Amino acid sequence: MAKPAVKLISQLGRSTPDTVIVRGHDLPDALMGHVNFGDMAFLQITGRLPEQAESLVFNAMLVALVEHGMTPSALAARLTFAGAPESLQGAVAAGLNGIGSRFAGTMEGAATLLSNALADAGDAPDIEALAARIVTAQAATGRHLPGIGHPLHRPLDPRAERLRALARQVGRDGPALQLIWAISAEAARRSGKVLPVNVTGAIGALVCELGIDSRIARGIAVISRTVGLIGHLSEEMAHPMADTLYQRVEAEVSEG
Amino acid sequence: MAKPAVKLISQLGRSTPDTVIVRGHDLPDALMGHVNFGDMAFLQITGRLPEQAESLVFNAMLVALVEHGMTPSALAARLTFAGAPESLQGAVAAGLNGIGSRFAGTMEGAATLLSNALADAGDAPDIEALAARIVTAQAATGRHLPGIGHPLHRPLDPRAERLRALARQVGRDGPALQLIWAISAEAARRSGKVLPVNVTGAIGALVCELGIDSRIARGIAVISRTVGLIGHLSEEMAHPMADTLYQRVEAEVSEG
Amino acid sequence: MAKPAVKLISQLGRSTPDTVIVRGHDLPDALMGHVNFGDMAFLQITGRLPEQAESLVFNAMLVALVEHGMTPSALAARLTFAGAPESLQGAVAAGLNGIGSRFAGTMEGAATLLSNALADAGDAPDIEALAARIVTAQAATGRHLPGIGHPLHRPLDPRAERLRALARQVGRDGPALQLIWAISAEAARRSGKVLPVNVTGAIGALVCELGIDSRIARGIAVISRTVGLIGHLSEEMAHPMADTLYQRVEAEVSEG
Amino acid sequence: MAKPAVKLISQLGRSTPDTVIVRGHDLPDALMGHVNFGDMAFLQITGRLPEQAESLVFNAMLVALVEHGMTPSALAARLTFAGAPESLQGAVAAGLNGIGSRFAGTMEGAATLLSNALADAGDAPDIEALAARIVTAQAATGRHLPGIGHPLHRPLDPRAERLRALARQVGRDGPALQLIWAISAEAARRSGKVLPVNVTGAIGALVCELGIDSRIARGIAVISRTVGLIGHLSEEMAHPMADTLYQRVEAEVSEG
Repeated sequence: MAKPAVKLISQLGRSTPDTVIVRGHDLPDALMGHVNFGDMAFLQITGRLPEQAESLVFNAMLVALVEHGMTPSALAARLTFAGAPESLQGAVAAGLNGIGSRFAGTMEGAATLLSNALADAGDAPDIEALAARIVTAQAATGRHLPGIGHPLHRPLDPRAERLRALARQVGRDGPALQLIWAISAEAARRSGKVLPVNVTGAIGALVCELGIDSRIARGIAVISRTVGLIGHLSEEMAHPMADTLYQRVEAEVSEG
Repeated sequence: MAKPAVKLISQLGRSTPDTVIVRGHDLPDALMGHVNFGDMAFLQITGRLPEQAESLVFNAMLVALVEHGMTPSALAARLTFAGAPESLQGAVAAGLNGIGSRFAGTMEGAATLLSNALADAGDAPDIEALAARIVTAQAATGRHLPGIGHPLHRPLDPRAERLRALARQVGRDGPALQLIWAISAEAARRSGKVLPVNVTGAIGALVCELGIDSRIARGIAVISRTVGLIGHLSEEMAHPMADTLYQRVEAEVSEG
Repeated sequence: MAKPAVKLISQLGRSTPDTVIVRGHDLPDALMGHVNFGDMAFLQITGRLPEQAESLVFNAMLVALVEHGMTPSALAARLTFAGAPESLQGAVAAGLNGIGSRFAGTMEGAATLLSNALADAGDAPDIEALAARIVTAQAATGRHLPGIGHPLHRPLDPRAERLRALARQVGRDGPALQLIWAISAEAARRSGKVLPVNVTGAIGALVCELGIDSRIARGIAVISRTVGLIGHLSEEMAHPMADTLYQRVEAEVSEG
Repeated sequence: MAKPAVKLISQLGRSTPDTVIVRGHDLPDALMGHVNFGDMAFLQITGRLPEQAESLVFNAMLVALVEHGMTPSALAARLTFAGAPESLQGAVAAGLNGIGSRFAGTMEGAATLLSNALADAGDAPDIEALAARIVTAQAATGRHLPGIGHPLHRPLDPRAERLRALARQVGRDGPALQLIWAISAEAARRSGKVLPVNVTGAIGALVCELGIDSRIARGIAVISRTVGLIGHLSEEMAHPMADTLYQRVEAEVSEG
């Protein structure tokens, strides 16, 4: 294997003794104290600062996913902390490893489905016709529509509805949002079931609307849930449940 | 082992079919669209929303740590992604596992040092005397003062200076900030070396100032760096460097 | 959500004050000192101890994958250790997160391809015909054949050849091994390229031969590489390279 | 930062087109089919193949720790798998993150305590006197003696007893083993409590006896538990418990 001549390149930032530049902005002078943390995340991921409308919507997306109870991911983080309390980062890493296909994958799936459909559909897509085609195609595969339906939040997922309302409020209720709501309506009509757009579906649509690469969509979930996990670990420090949980399972399994 | 009767309790939140409550606030109606992502992190970690002054400072702390170049943590995430591109969350988890004693531990160390010293010192601490005692005590152990000194950012760490300026601007330049700057000055005076307060020292002090548990201090770094890692992985998708890096090392090592 | 009545069950083992039972065997008396670590892994994964022939082949599979140089996974573990030297387990976790689709996925892919093909083919499969059908089908998808070809080990992968020789030696050169070698020959014939069975292909075939669930196939790689990573971290403690690597990349990227 | 001139070096192995060398041994010809997986782990970690006595003891150490029920680490792995079933490696990584100070740290603590004490004690240490000094010193710190005592296995930990019996059988019942058993006896005598050497204590002593660096001691636990975790995930695939566990906790917490 010859030593490759390829030069390593990164455009994210650089440091000098007296400052740090991130994505072309002076970190201490132009970012710290000027942009909120959600805007900074937008900058770091997309390479540009969000417009005001984008800032409102993007911060709301991140806020929406922070906390949703004692999820398997939160429990994994708490149990890990019980064995390695010296490593908060390891407990968070454990929790993040569970943000996979069953949760974040849905968001990515929705973003990919919508962006592909809209890329093929040209400038003035017929949203209803597109939704019908997508529901038909998905039914043929036998797989769930990503971002549609929720076991608890019915008939509507309040987080999804709120995200759409915010998008409307700032004039960003574009074709991706319209399309996923049309898909939901069409799927519900055909099946007779209650099939709301859920929060991952709404975020998948907003990822398209904001021009974020759908492959990075699950990064949104990873960022939000990291905050959520730190909250869970903070609570676990004060009011631990991991050992109780472990002892219960061990006792139940031992009874055979 | 008898089945414990302890009841599992969590105060973080709860869900009903038509809403999600986080830390007592209605997520869709009172948080989404109303608070930025930094404020939401403050709420999830501390249990209360930040005041305006706290919001400014806390968002700036999170913004400060997002990006600082091709750190070992960023490289680990990129290399992991090269082997498992289907698992963005796994690559972030790998990167977070390196946010340990050498970086985040410093922040926690500074927060602990300052909060212990101030807790013992009563209501009107003599900051200069306290700093002198701390520098003396630390010198006796032979260990570095946490949060003091930087290999690149000298004579001052611009992120630390900016954080203190923001704290001053909103009237939160309290005893913890004063103390760590006094420690830096005293240590520099005694050693004749350039020993600025660095960004982890400033954040450690602000953790005390905001009343956040010092054990959760490194959670601030974990949150910020998660955003940073998503940015690195976004760039790695577009302009990969992991395989080049691997091939270079393999070739160099093989030459023996 | 009503509390589910489902009872948690595990057949892996149980402990009493005076012993530990694993998969029905007394751990101290019947396993420790009696079975080697590879056999113990076989027991823990499959629920039964291996026969002598299986023991030879299974230990060789595990031995084969322990070490293969400065892989991205090994580098990620070393870099992680540099940031969190207090957490050996976190550095290993980081390294394992990179054992994904590009390496272990190939092994799983080979095992799945072979077991599906042989399940459909009945008791006396025509191996040559099956291989031809598989190569044709795979060519139509445009994807690589899993477990076939190697950038360095050519014309043959010595680890794959050794595994087959050992299987032959103990009378376990069954249809899965025959099939993947036939696929390799057929693919090479059609393409005119050098396309040996590689070590992941041979192990994928042996997974079928030993009756191990193909979904657990990548577990073999995870176990072996864990040993490999501990070796790398042991060397990193004595002769660190992570900081040098980091500084080189940082310097190169900063030159822009 | 000037580009460092340091050359990257690794002695673990190297590959050529027709073979792989690991720690100086030809992998396909001299290791595969010749050494069991425990011996290979010994080679990869220490750089040399074990003698026959060492092989027996080292394999038994690895076998001892594979499985010990529904530990927090095993539960974390199962819960992670439920969220990301496509990433077996991520679930194992999550489980490993919990092999921290509370379990593996004990093993490392015992190895460090014993190796330091014996290094200071010269060639013919008075084991009883040494034990008395250690128990006194530890009592003064108020901390537990690492590797001593067990909540379930009493009056003896059968795995520890078995390890010592095996060591005796092959003439390796050296000073480290003698010392930890003397510490256990002395601590029990003084406190009147039942304080057996536990499995982590016995392994910590054997780490010293085999000349393995005590900083790598927890690597033994990491390797064993990786095998254990693959077993748990194999069972979780066939008989999942993660969703039930999650739903129970969520329901219990919601009742508030």
